Amino acid sequence: MKLHGYFRSSASFRVRIALNLKRLDYDAAFVHIAKGEQHAPAYCALNPQALVPMLEIGGDLLTQSLAIIEYLEETHPHPPLLPANALERARVRSLSLLIACEIHPVNNTRVLQHLKRALGQSEEQVNAWYRHWIADGLAKFEAQLQGTRGSGRFCHGDAPTMADCCLVPQVFNAQRFQCDTGAYPKTMQIFAECMRNEAFDRAQPSKQPDAE
Amino acid sequence: MKLHGYFRSSASFRVRIALNLKRLDYDAAFVHIAKGEQHAPAYCALNPQALVPMLEIGGDLLTQSLAIIEYLEETHPHPPLLPANALERARVRSLSLLIACEIHPVNNTRVLQHLKRALGQSEEQVNAWYRHWIADGLAKFEAQLQGTRGSGRFCHGDAPTMADCCLVPQVFNAQRFQCDTGAYPKTMQIFAECMRNEAFDRAQPSKQPDAE
Repeated sequence: MKLHGYFRSSASFRVRIALNLKRLDYDAAFVHIAKGEQHAPAYCALNPQALVPMLEIGGDLLTQSLAIIEYLEETHPHPPLLPANALERARVRSLSLLIACEIHPVNNTRVLQHLKRALGQSEEQVNAWYRHWIADGLAKFEAQLQGTRGSGRFCHGDAPTMADCCLVPQVFNAQRFQCDTGAYPKTMQIFAECMRNEAFDRAQPSKQPDAE
Repeated sequence: MKLHGYFRSSASFRVRIALNLKRLDYDAAFVHIAKGEQHAPAYCALNPQALVPMLEIGGDLLTQSLAIIEYLEETHPHPPLLPANALERARVRSLSLLIACEIHPVNNTRVLQHLKRALGQSEEQVNAWYRHWIADGLAKFEAQLQGTRGSGRFCHGDAPTMADCCLVPQVFNAQRFQCDTGAYPKTMQIFAECMRNEAFDRAQPSKQPDAE
């Protein structure tokens, strides 16, 4: 198994956590997103989406972090990253998608670059944009954690799920952009619990071979 | 079953298609997104994410369109909206997420409103933003349809899947904003095939009771 990723990519970080939680060994290949290596013809020939992560298994190439995690769940079910019950699975997927669809896409590298280059926004304006969507999204995440049944030491129950794989990279991003996280106590308590887990800790950007 | 949605919401549209494909009857409740009804305290008490769609089943409330579709797939497996094989399921999920994570979030109502109100962008600039991300995303979608094995009359094989439930609302958005879709022949061929299917046709915005 080979994971094509980038140390700072949240989506790559999610898959690294899932692989570690499932105790799956993998080789790493590095695609430097800030330098635009995802647009290199050799990479696009493998992944027409020109995004990371991409997981290579035998001759097969899997893309999109949540699709990769669902695949790992189906092919390596232990330990599970989704509950057994359909309603609980829906809650975990909803929390995961709240991050993957509502927060992260609006703040990813190519959107920030477009704000600068095409819309002429300053560094400071781009940072304000970033913090706006983090605040909007984490407030919704906190409200859902607190307002729906199921949260425990982790986002759902007392063991890590796909939702925690999504949450931790998003909190790393919030901290990197100095967002105030004081308004999200349950979220931050779960983040702290995750970071005491070796699988999460070892997946963090600064511990990757391509970290700068 | 009651679907809380909005005629023009892409994410609601995805779930309407899935419900129709699975021949599930549902009641509809309407949340007028352009008027901000998703922020009404009574709605937020049910859905802390303040988003549509939300599917009410018995006393349970499901949120996030793809989590809802996965739940419907698990509880009403026929006809299937995901293939049986794990690798093929990963391809369908990747195509679905390419739309749900890479195109749609950057162009949703609250982002467009923020561009206008906080960043002072004109109507014309906002439309250019919209078309930019449609072109970026549909080009990637077309490349993946053509560059990975599995496409048939539909995104994957010859029957509709979750990927088609995501594609069709996105193409409706592209057409509403007069995006040129000439560069995506395979995508548009599949879109046309979908629209010949009653389940897709009946789910379209203009045919909903709350359409304006």
